[in-house]
Amino acid sequence: MKEILLIGGGGHCRSVIDVIEQEGQFQIVGIVDMAELLGRDILGYPVIGDDSDLENLAKKYAYALITIGQIKSPEQRIKLFELAKKAGFKMPSILSPRAYVSKHAFIADGTIIMHDVVINAKASIGNNCIINSKALIEHDSLILDHCHISTSVTINGGVIVEDGCFIGSGATTKESIIIKNNSVIQAGSFVT
Amino acid sequence: MKEILLIGGGGHCRSVIDVIEQEGQFQIVGIVDMAELLGRDILGYPVIGDDSDLENLAKKYAYALITIGQIKSPEQRIKLFELAKKAGFKMPSILSPRAYVSKHAFIADGTIIMHDVVINAKASIGNNCIINSKALIEHDSLILDHCHISTSVTINGGVIVEDGCFIGSGATTKESIIIKNNSVIQAGSFVT
Amino acid sequence: MKEILLIGGGGHCRSVIDVIEQEGQFQIVGIVDMAELLGRDILGYPVIGDDSDLENLAKKYAYALITIGQIKSPEQRIKLFELAKKAGFKMPSILSPRAYVSKHAFIADGTIIMHDVVINAKASIGNNCIINSKALIEHDSLILDHCHISTSVTINGGVIVEDGCFIGSGATTKESIIIKNNSVIQAGSFVT
Repeated sequence: MKEILLIGGGGHCRSVIDVIEQEGQFQIVGIVDMAELLGRDILGYPVIGDDSDLENLAKKYAYALITIGQIKSPEQRIKLFELAKKAGFKMPSILSPRAYVSKHAFIADGTIIMHDVVINAKASIGNNCIINSKALIEHDSLILDHCHISTSVTINGGVIVEDGCFIGSGATTKESIIIKNNSVIQAGSFVT
Repeated sequence: MKEILLIGGGGHCRSVIDVIEQEGQFQIVGIVDMAELLGRDILGYPVIGDDSDLENLAKKYAYALITIGQIKSPEQRIKLFELAKKAGFKMPSILSPRAYVSKHAFIADGTIIMHDVVINAKASIGNNCIINSKALIEHDSLILDHCHISTSVTINGGVIVEDGCFIGSGATTKESIIIKNNSVIQAGSFVT
Repeated sequence: MKEILLIGGGGHCRSVIDVIEQEGQFQIVGIVDMAELLGRDILGYPVIGDDSDLENLAKKYAYALITIGQIKSPEQRIKLFELAKKAGFKMPSILSPRAYVSKHAFIADGTIIMHDVVINAKASIGNNCIINSKALIEHDSLILDHCHISTSVTINGGVIVEDGCFIGSGATTKESIIIKNNSVIQAGSFVT
């Protein structure tokens, strides 16, 4: 099995571990978090280093995924994604076996598709995104890089979500709209 | 494999193609759309005629499905459904293999059940409906003909949705209510 | 197959029957409801007694589940749960084969997990709960006893829902909040 390092050890990381375990392609070798958490474990996987260890860890392990959450600002996830790439990690996309990704859709690197997501025909998802549990990305939609599409969000057909957006849980978009760079969309809202 | 013609070639058609490909019972022979699109292709399937060719096409192909979308008014889908029936097509119901339809539920002709829909016990769906991705139709609900239940809608138990309704994406209904003929329900709303 | 008695014969019971049939571990032997419904059947299963027959029925059948709905108040479901336990029934948890329950999650007795529910890592569900169709319980959430999490609800990460709550259909919660004992949350709302 391929070995993967997880960067960020909070609640979102626990959900990601569950997806990776179910998906079955990667063995989680450990988690990178703050130095003071060294030696702790998260669902049985040890914290084995902090950000400053990424270059050394990249010599041992080929794959990494950013697993800190993204509430509102994408900055922290972008910074870690760039750091991990620079250190030499490959950033795979990981798809829950419970999700459906159309064969006519595209998913870029470092993006995770959580349980029960549907990505429909001709949709495209950028790098380093979280498409969270039960989200729906409809046909012909385009999600650019570093976006968090939260739990139970519905992105309707032909929508463009530009870089670094946060779409709050349960939000629904009108079809064929553009959501600008770094937008923060309120949970539960309908976006027109 | 049975051959099927799709009538209407927009974004909704792409989603339907994805469902039909996954479902695996029908071979798509082509799409009917506006004359000026003749020869174009949609996810690899050619536009082979316009509405005026339906009678001729019915001599070659047994099955058809209405695949234009329905935003608000059902008129265009009703017109095409009647035209296709008159031309002699059989209008099957098509169920995504990702959907769940209770064995205690009923689905009428020309209706498509998209990915990740749930149709619960004793629910009944009429003719020429779209039950769109991730919609939930709860127990004992009745959806009449020519309705579009959009993405991520929840129709709770014992609701009646009369003919020609459009229920906008992400809307939720109270249980045991009646939604009158040709209603247009705002996306994201809670209907009492 | 293990034999199970269902206590309460309304619309929710029909949804539960569908789940139990799909799950395949239990044979439904009958339904307990009001005396005047004796001899009626629900999806083919007979009403074989009322509440006053529970002690006798517990001598014949090992398992029971409370299958009346819970709109707002949990009182009736609590009363029947206590009555059935006192009569000697075992109250199993029942999981739809369409649901996903993380191996890092926990489900207590007498709780039903309906179709297309997701229960994520480190979530925990108490006794005698209904987690209704398409609900999502995110990582690290805690649902205590006698709660009804309605259809299409999203409980985000780290939320605590105390005893006896009713969370209305389609509602979404902010992460890491506490919803107090016996709260009634409006359908379609966003809870902060």
